[in-house]
Amino acid sequence: MPVSVRSVPASVHLARTLASPAMQAAVTTRCPGVAHVAGYHLGWLDVNGEPCVSSGGKALRTALALVSAQAAGADAEQGVPAAIAVELVHNFSLLHDDIIDGDIERRHQPTAWAVFGTSQAILTGNALFTAALALLLEQDCEGSRLAASSLVTASQRLLNGQAADLSFETRDDVTLPESLAMAADKTSALFNCASSIGAALVGGDHRLVSGLSEFGEHLGTAFQLIDDLRGIWGDPKTTGKPALSDLRSRKKTLPLVAAMSSGTRHAAELAALYLHPAAMSDEELHRVADLVEAAGGRRWAEEQTEVEFGAAMSTLAGLAMPEPAREALADLARFALGRDR
Amino acid sequence: MPVSVRSVPASVHLARTLASPAMQAAVTTRCPGVAHVAGYHLGWLDVNGEPCVSSGGKALRTALALVSAQAAGADAEQGVPAAIAVELVHNFSLLHDDIIDGDIERRHQPTAWAVFGTSQAILTGNALFTAALALLLEQDCEGSRLAASSLVTASQRLLNGQAADLSFETRDDVTLPESLAMAADKTSALFNCASSIGAALVGGDHRLVSGLSEFGEHLGTAFQLIDDLRGIWGDPKTTGKPALSDLRSRKKTLPLVAAMSSGTRHAAELAALYLHPAAMSDEELHRVADLVEAAGGRRWAEEQTEVEFGAAMSTLAGLAMPEPAREALADLARFALGRDR
Repeated sequence: MPVSVRSVPASVHLARTLASPAMQAAVTTRCPGVAHVAGYHLGWLDVNGEPCVSSGGKALRTALALVSAQAAGADAEQGVPAAIAVELVHNFSLLHDDIIDGDIERRHQPTAWAVFGTSQAILTGNALFTAALALLLEQDCEGSRLAASSLVTASQRLLNGQAADLSFETRDDVTLPESLAMAADKTSALFNCASSIGAALVGGDHRLVSGLSEFGEHLGTAFQLIDDLRGIWGDPKTTGKPALSDLRSRKKTLPLVAAMSSGTRHAAELAALYLHPAAMSDEELHRVADLVEAAGGRRWAEEQTEVEFGAAMSTLAGLAMPEPAREALADLARFALGRDR
Repeated sequence: MPVSVRSVPASVHLARTLASPAMQAAVTTRCPGVAHVAGYHLGWLDVNGEPCVSSGGKALRTALALVSAQAAGADAEQGVPAAIAVELVHNFSLLHDDIIDGDIERRHQPTAWAVFGTSQAILTGNALFTAALALLLEQDCEGSRLAASSLVTASQRLLNGQAADLSFETRDDVTLPESLAMAADKTSALFNCASSIGAALVGGDHRLVSGLSEFGEHLGTAFQLIDDLRGIWGDPKTTGKPALSDLRSRKKTLPLVAAMSSGTRHAAELAALYLHPAAMSDEELHRVADLVEAAGGRRWAEEQTEVEFGAAMSTLAGLAMPEPAREALADLARFALGRDR
């Protein structure tokens, strides 16, 4: 569902005005050898290195990190290094993921590796990751090491998730628990980190930091479920990805695996179509989508989204923090999931 | 020149007995999703995942890090996390470098990406890098953040060096200072880190840590000069790389760039041959090697190696540390450069 400009949360505006210039400065000064590729991937530069107008993206993780600092009683400004570090790691993973998945388009543009080659995209991803850690370790405060540890832990989970995702491509027997664990590692881990790293950096109370982690973990899982639903039934104009792309590349997404392991009569037909190595026609792809729905995969994913959203909100309600920060986090969660606010 | 088993320094034996099992444990527990690819790259596992006997490699960086802890008055054991972290980052860079350079052989074996594919090799490199940082940040001591910072700084330089190396491939006007800066980033940075990170982790004196960095920086540059010399005139049995491979892939190595910018009459013939896009015959490659020598590139690199070795040794002589550690570092430096000891 399209989101009108009017409904963008204040924290996302804050992320764009506060963190975007700092992000640009960090990349330019810390990653000089790959600044063009990085700027292209991040939407500031065109293929020729000329500045261009960027949509700014949803800046969800950046906004979560800034509000996370506010939740610990600090100013959003104090959370900026944490916010940039999370955004850098997110983009490190996207740059490498596009190579791994062979995706040639992201945000309606050719992917970095498709334009500049695999080597440049590998190095650029590495440079962003390293810059993120340098930024956090340079902060002269108590929470510097804790924030860096949090980011490294999230990165380890992210990499495990990418490895699992890759291994699923050649496996026919992926279970729903395995699929959920993969999604948690690949997506929830960084939402978990984004939601708590600001508080960690500014020296927030241990219970608050761990509660914010839990909030982010649930939010991330709900976000991934919605992303998977959109990957099958979403409008390419909104998703920025070609229609049915997740099915075309035979991704073992959550609704798909739920349908496949449903034990319904549709599951067998679905497996026969989806696990067969031959390329699928558009007609067959639509049939797969219909079978996932008929086998209950769509309904399960929609219900599970509600469960995770509910868990995120109830975790949030139980944490001690300034009310404006709590409201901002709730607003961001609804925005991330495309819900009415 | 081949090195007999008898002449391997005690610190290298220590590195193999002390750090190798810890390294294997770190990879197995921290990188479960890519343990097979990592184990293959590191020489513990064969293509099918079966354990195999590893030569253990030269373990230079590991040994430097252990002795670095001893230089600060600690036991070698206390330097183990630092030593493993450096070795993990070194192997992260090798895994990605082999993809970037398109190298299909390393240590007389097919490279990881050639066996398991680019995606697996990218993820494995990332997993090793992340494990290195996790290991350092988990250490519950004062020096944990300093050691992590040192490793991140070295990694940033390493990535800058890889990016410069890549950009040199398509440039005809690389200068000797640029080439020296690239080599310093790509090689000396991690020697610098390896030589000082053990001392940093165990809380060594600031002057000692920075002096050890300087020692490692010079040693690394000397090591790269020797490596470049071997890449042209070395015996493939010793180097583990195909004969003349650096020239075949038109690397802008130090002796090559020195010769090309020598202003001699051989430089022009060299440039005409080397900068021409067509593939070179073995005869032409030998002619290139002869021209590099005739233009003074070999002699310059040999003299420069002496300068850097001398600077490393005189830096070492000026530092306050226990004599056995000083002797061990001097012994390691000679071993690294294949000198009589």
